[in-house]
Amino acid sequence: MKLYNYFRSSASFRVRIALELKGLAYEYRAVHLAKGEQKQPEFTALTAEGLVPLLELDDGRRLTQSMAIIEYLDETHPQPALLLADAAGRARVRALAQIVACEIHPLNNLRVLKYLVHELKVGDEAKNAWYRHWVRLGLESYEAQLAAQPATYSHGDAPTLADCCLVPQIFNAQRFDCDLSGLPRTMAVFEACMKLPAFQRAQPSACPDFEA
Amino acid sequence: MKLYNYFRSSASFRVRIALELKGLAYEYRAVHLAKGEQKQPEFTALTAEGLVPLLELDDGRRLTQSMAIIEYLDETHPQPALLLADAAGRARVRALAQIVACEIHPLNNLRVLKYLVHELKVGDEAKNAWYRHWVRLGLESYEAQLAAQPATYSHGDAPTLADCCLVPQIFNAQRFDCDLSGLPRTMAVFEACMKLPAFQRAQPSACPDFEA
Repeated sequence: MKLYNYFRSSASFRVRIALELKGLAYEYRAVHLAKGEQKQPEFTALTAEGLVPLLELDDGRRLTQSMAIIEYLDETHPQPALLLADAAGRARVRALAQIVACEIHPLNNLRVLKYLVHELKVGDEAKNAWYRHWVRLGLESYEAQLAAQPATYSHGDAPTLADCCLVPQIFNAQRFDCDLSGLPRTMAVFEACMKLPAFQRAQPSACPDFEA
Repeated sequence: MKLYNYFRSSASFRVRIALELKGLAYEYRAVHLAKGEQKQPEFTALTAEGLVPLLELDDGRRLTQSMAIIEYLDETHPQPALLLADAAGRARVRALAQIVACEIHPLNNLRVLKYLVHELKVGDEAKNAWYRHWVRLGLESYEAQLAAQPATYSHGDAPTLADCCLVPQIFNAQRFDCDLSGLPRTMAVFEACMKLPAFQRAQPSACPDFEA
């Protein structure tokens, strides 16, 4: 498998975590988003969307959208499970993942921040306030969900799809100096995850294309 | 089951379509987003997130996040299937759904538009340009995916999770006068869906809380 991705892309980071948790080897193909490599013909020939992550399977098929990729990996390589055996547990794990993937991250990714700055002429301070607003709102929802059913990880005593989404979001939040106080369960889950070698190996600073 | 939702919420509309496709009866509970009812204690007592749709099951459990709800319905009421039997098909259907649910809709929902207007002081014209920009970008990706594997519906010859997400997005795009030219496959899928009674029954104008 080849994973087209970028060290700082949090959607890429989600997939790297899933691959590491499952112990699946993959070829790392860097697509430098800040340099616009996702818009170059070499990459758009692979995926019209021009988005990372893109997972190319050994048979040449290409999968897009990080949550869909992780569910595919989970179905085709079931151990360790990143979703659960029961429908109610899966619904909760997916809903947690989607708090990050549908409520926080889409508002804060690079192309959106660029639109704010270049098209809407939003200044740095207002851009950072926007970023922090959506992070905070989403993580408060996440915290409330965790408080209702506390566990070591986001759901239960092993990492799931939800943790694959949460951890990269916390990395981003820290990078943008977001207020992470008052989120004790969320931060405890984050710390539990970061004790695991899979999360360590997947993090931006462990990537071949990492830039400080 | 009780579906807490709002006629104009496109995430609510997704779940209504799934319920109708599966022929599942539900109690319609209106939450008037424009009047802020999602922030009232009656609703936040049910879900800290204060987001619709919220599906309350007969045993009292409450499910959030539209895609997670639809997958739950599909797992617990398998016929007709809204995802497919094969992992590759499911990955494609989920990726299509996520183009809408992660790339378009989060940028254009009511609370984001309110932030643009009230916090960033964005004018009407720039707000509409923002809306149309993300719709267009996402639907062009959707069109490219459909062109690579054409069918009557988004994937294959029956509606799936992807169509549950696409159709409400097209309704929104039309309401905001987005340019839908040059998207022949996407619009043909939309029209095929709207010929089905389930999509007709789920649409905003068929909802008890509809306002013209």
